[in-house]
Amino acid sequence: MKIFDTNRAETLVVALGGLGEVGKNMYVIMHDDEMIIIDAGVMFPKDELMGIDYVIPDFNFLKKNEEKIKALFITHGHEDHIGGIAYLLQTVNVPAIYAPNQACGLIKRKFADRNISYDNLKVYNENTIVKFKHFKVEFFATTHSIPDSHGIIITTPNGKIVETGDFKFDLTPIGPMSNIHKMSDAGKDGVRLLMSESTNALSPGFSASESKVEEELQEIFEKKKKGRIIIATFASNIYRLKHIVETCKKYNRKIALFGRSMENNIEISIEGGYIKDDKIFVSPEVANTLKPEEVCLLCTGSQGEPLAALSRIANGSHKQIKLRPTDTVIFSSNPIPGNNSSVAKTINQLYLQGVDVFVNNSENEIHTSGHANQEELKLMIRLINPEYFMPIHGEYRMLKAHQDLAIDCDIPRDKTFLLQNGDVLALSKKEIRKVGNIGADDIYVDGNRIGDIGSVVIRDRKIMANDGILVAICNINTETHKLLGKINITTRGFILVNENEELLNQIEEVAENTVNKELMQKNVNYNDLKGQMITNILTFVFEKTGRRPIILPVILDIKK
Amino acid sequence: MKIFDTNRAETLVVALGGLGEVGKNMYVIMHDDEMIIIDAGVMFPKDELMGIDYVIPDFNFLKKNEEKIKALFITHGHEDHIGGIAYLLQTVNVPAIYAPNQACGLIKRKFADRNISYDNLKVYNENTIVKFKHFKVEFFATTHSIPDSHGIIITTPNGKIVETGDFKFDLTPIGPMSNIHKMSDAGKDGVRLLMSESTNALSPGFSASESKVEEELQEIFEKKKKGRIIIATFASNIYRLKHIVETCKKYNRKIALFGRSMENNIEISIEGGYIKDDKIFVSPEVANTLKPEEVCLLCTGSQGEPLAALSRIANGSHKQIKLRPTDTVIFSSNPIPGNNSSVAKTINQLYLQGVDVFVNNSENEIHTSGHANQEELKLMIRLINPEYFMPIHGEYRMLKAHQDLAIDCDIPRDKTFLLQNGDVLALSKKEIRKVGNIGADDIYVDGNRIGDIGSVVIRDRKIMANDGILVAICNINTETHKLLGKINITTRGFILVNENEELLNQIEEVAENTVNKELMQKNVNYNDLKGQMITNILTFVFEKTGRRPIILPVILDIKK
Repeated sequence: MKIFDTNRAETLVVALGGLGEVGKNMYVIMHDDEMIIIDAGVMFPKDELMGIDYVIPDFNFLKKNEEKIKALFITHGHEDHIGGIAYLLQTVNVPAIYAPNQACGLIKRKFADRNISYDNLKVYNENTIVKFKHFKVEFFATTHSIPDSHGIIITTPNGKIVETGDFKFDLTPIGPMSNIHKMSDAGKDGVRLLMSESTNALSPGFSASESKVEEELQEIFEKKKKGRIIIATFASNIYRLKHIVETCKKYNRKIALFGRSMENNIEISIEGGYIKDDKIFVSPEVANTLKPEEVCLLCTGSQGEPLAALSRIANGSHKQIKLRPTDTVIFSSNPIPGNNSSVAKTINQLYLQGVDVFVNNSENEIHTSGHANQEELKLMIRLINPEYFMPIHGEYRMLKAHQDLAIDCDIPRDKTFLLQNGDVLALSKKEIRKVGNIGADDIYVDGNRIGDIGSVVIRDRKIMANDGILVAICNINTETHKLLGKINITTRGFILVNENEELLNQIEEVAENTVNKELMQKNVNYNDLKGQMITNILTFVFEKTGRRPIILPVILDIKK
Repeated sequence: MKIFDTNRAETLVVALGGLGEVGKNMYVIMHDDEMIIIDAGVMFPKDELMGIDYVIPDFNFLKKNEEKIKALFITHGHEDHIGGIAYLLQTVNVPAIYAPNQACGLIKRKFADRNISYDNLKVYNENTIVKFKHFKVEFFATTHSIPDSHGIIITTPNGKIVETGDFKFDLTPIGPMSNIHKMSDAGKDGVRLLMSESTNALSPGFSASESKVEEELQEIFEKKKKGRIIIATFASNIYRLKHIVETCKKYNRKIALFGRSMENNIEISIEGGYIKDDKIFVSPEVANTLKPEEVCLLCTGSQGEPLAALSRIANGSHKQIKLRPTDTVIFSSNPIPGNNSSVAKTINQLYLQGVDVFVNNSENEIHTSGHANQEELKLMIRLINPEYFMPIHGEYRMLKAHQDLAIDCDIPRDKTFLLQNGDVLALSKKEIRKVGNIGADDIYVDGNRIGDIGSVVIRDRKIMANDGILVAICNINTETHKLLGKINITTRGFILVNENEELLNQIEEVAENTVNKELMQKNVNYNDLKGQMITNILTFVFEKTGRRPIILPVILDIKK
């Protein structure tokens, strides 16, 4: 198959997701009859996508080229990189999936939860080399907020491509150092194209080290020796959990876990050898029998998720844990954009209960991002020293800022690519250029169904979210031109029904007059009748209430 | 009327709104048969209050004490201080409203828009003294993001109360200095209770001066001498508009205005003498005929409001303004909490169109808050030097942080009050203590109706926002126990109807089986039938789709 103006000697790079957004990462590299995929993520929808559970990449291009797919490579185990695998496997055949250890564990849990049987999931590590006819794939360890994050080096017939995955540089990490020497070697060998993540491209400087976080958390333990300490953090940040556990050990506190993902991840950490001492963990019941200064509660809910452990503790609805004035609550986290107000709500509730609260700020650096700030992004560019640069993994303002950093690092502007999902880059021996767009939409997953929600459905949800719905039902006889019985007006989300009977009676009257008038026509046209009912009821309702609910007329013709 | 354990010698202070929230400020001061009110604001609802337009204070307590109300005092013209006046006047008789000049103008516009005739709106200034039997009310000028902001000094039989209104300290303001000498004098005379605003109590240091903003904006004008400059800012920030106009004059740029509130406020500024030269303003049509370097477009939309001028310019739907690659867009603003993602969306769209964008950050200080940071809050506490302290105007975490600052400033903890709306403080010669709570709920305004939306309506809106609604309509004859005709299944916001006919047919079948089974009962019970339909349809739908729409069965009995 010939795509665009490219020929069989060119290597193609396409993002199916990840550009112009933080989420649903999926990058495709293709040469002639071979294609490899990097990551298959989901995106958590913005509020405006009412009720949608996930957004996934558009797999159409993969479906069309299914026979070329050789393998899927996973950089690390976060949902925006692995959350789409189950949906991908529903759509196309993927001969092999390669993932690092931690991600493999998480993917296996996913498969088990959904009864997916897949028998070619392989663990890779830094020494793994995967070879295809046209591609050689290698890996280098990076530091991120989950263990086992990797960057990928793909040697193609048109030179090396480096895809960083998610990374930061932490020169005093709690886990292993990232492999800066392997990055440096790749740079020395010559890299054609660097695809580097842009999440924190707007943040100046160098992100704080996890060791600094450990230190600052210990300071709070040192200061707060009397009451219980309650910590909320991201469950998948295993190294964070590791040093919190070690700090608890140092300060003689037992740990009780709250939240399923926290329990799961501690289990994974023990299995993986990240956490050695499992005797430090006690049940909530046992924790409640210990002295306050002997207890640390480690819980989910750092994002103010309404049903998470900390949120229920904060609003007093948690069955096992009631707050005491001597408690200290630590948010070892930042609010993810979009969660600010739910986190604020939790903090306000905690203060109302009289406990002491620590959040991450310049005074208490008790969290650090897993993503590289500007100086780290520049370090990656300098190490890899690529000929061409393509920022990935970010909203446009982040991609743009990252592009500017690359230009600052001496990459000519016309060798940097600010692209959109679906845009195709073609690599030839001579150059890299943009050659077109294959179309990569957002696909919505709601409940257990893919793609059966369209913009009409979302528009209706929005109207109902704001003003509710008003259903007007009538039986008519189109032969006798008679309205049978009364018109039934039922509403949801529109108004308190019991206290507004008069208004509802008036609406019924408006509907009845409309129907009677339309029935006087020689030929009763259903659509005209419906249209007229909508117009008249909506006009009346808007005048009376200032609201515009969906008006849903249902007309049943019972001539027989 | 005797309230709580207080007696006629005590002075009472109650917040009806403003505590535990940023919005709907309303504070009441009462002594024996006299009551004065400070501010009457609205609050813009959080997303979880689906479709609600405003939240206003609960006026019940005022209604019960209507004959005592002497006057309403307005500190300044922002919506969270004046937006509730129209609703207040619908509920109780307010003999007089005192407001500073700028706020008066805005209130008059409000009255005109809503056809409210009110004939006792009076302008006050710093020299005004208003006397009642028990109260003397005086004012001091403050600096805020709208001109004419004032703090209020109320002399009561139990000593002086100071309510700051919204303020910051700007020692090099664009407008007049705040009256620190009058604050200082009040402090020297002895103040019993300081009620001080807490919006920025979590922000360390001293906020930037407006002069700094002017300087940094000029730097961008200096740098960007080629293309058009497009500035989005808060329309009510008159001093910001003033110095932007002056900068445009300096750099020989004509100004075209976009957005109704921007036009209104420029008009107000010219009327009020803040802006002298009205020849600098040109129509959009004229602006389009000028050279790019001669043009500045000043517009609304700094918060990413979907219909505002800048948002339409950014997404390409503005009729008069199409972006050019040489344009520079300046956000002289910060996103208000909750607006982060809509602002980000606008910025991303601007970058996609290839223009240069400046936002407020440490590199470009092109906005400053109108609220006091920690050092400024401490300065107010030191100047007023009160015996007792009550933080107002903020979420609990802000009130709490402000309380801590007061304690740092030598006010004993037991003389600080972290209160909730409705809590009553009683001032006697001897002490100030909390004596109870009069109950102050949130009242919802949706469209043009107050309080006709309850939690049931909001719950229904939430369900429909997420999963839509499914209406199942049937005609039955309860005498013959027959289902007449087919069951009509209609949905909104649930699924794309055309592409899911099979599923909808299956649902119809489930409904039909349910009805037929129930009709076999000797006595057909409507509620049982409805309940059974809801259960069976919801179970089936959830299994098939993973969604839980509202199931709305409508049963029409047509025995006659």
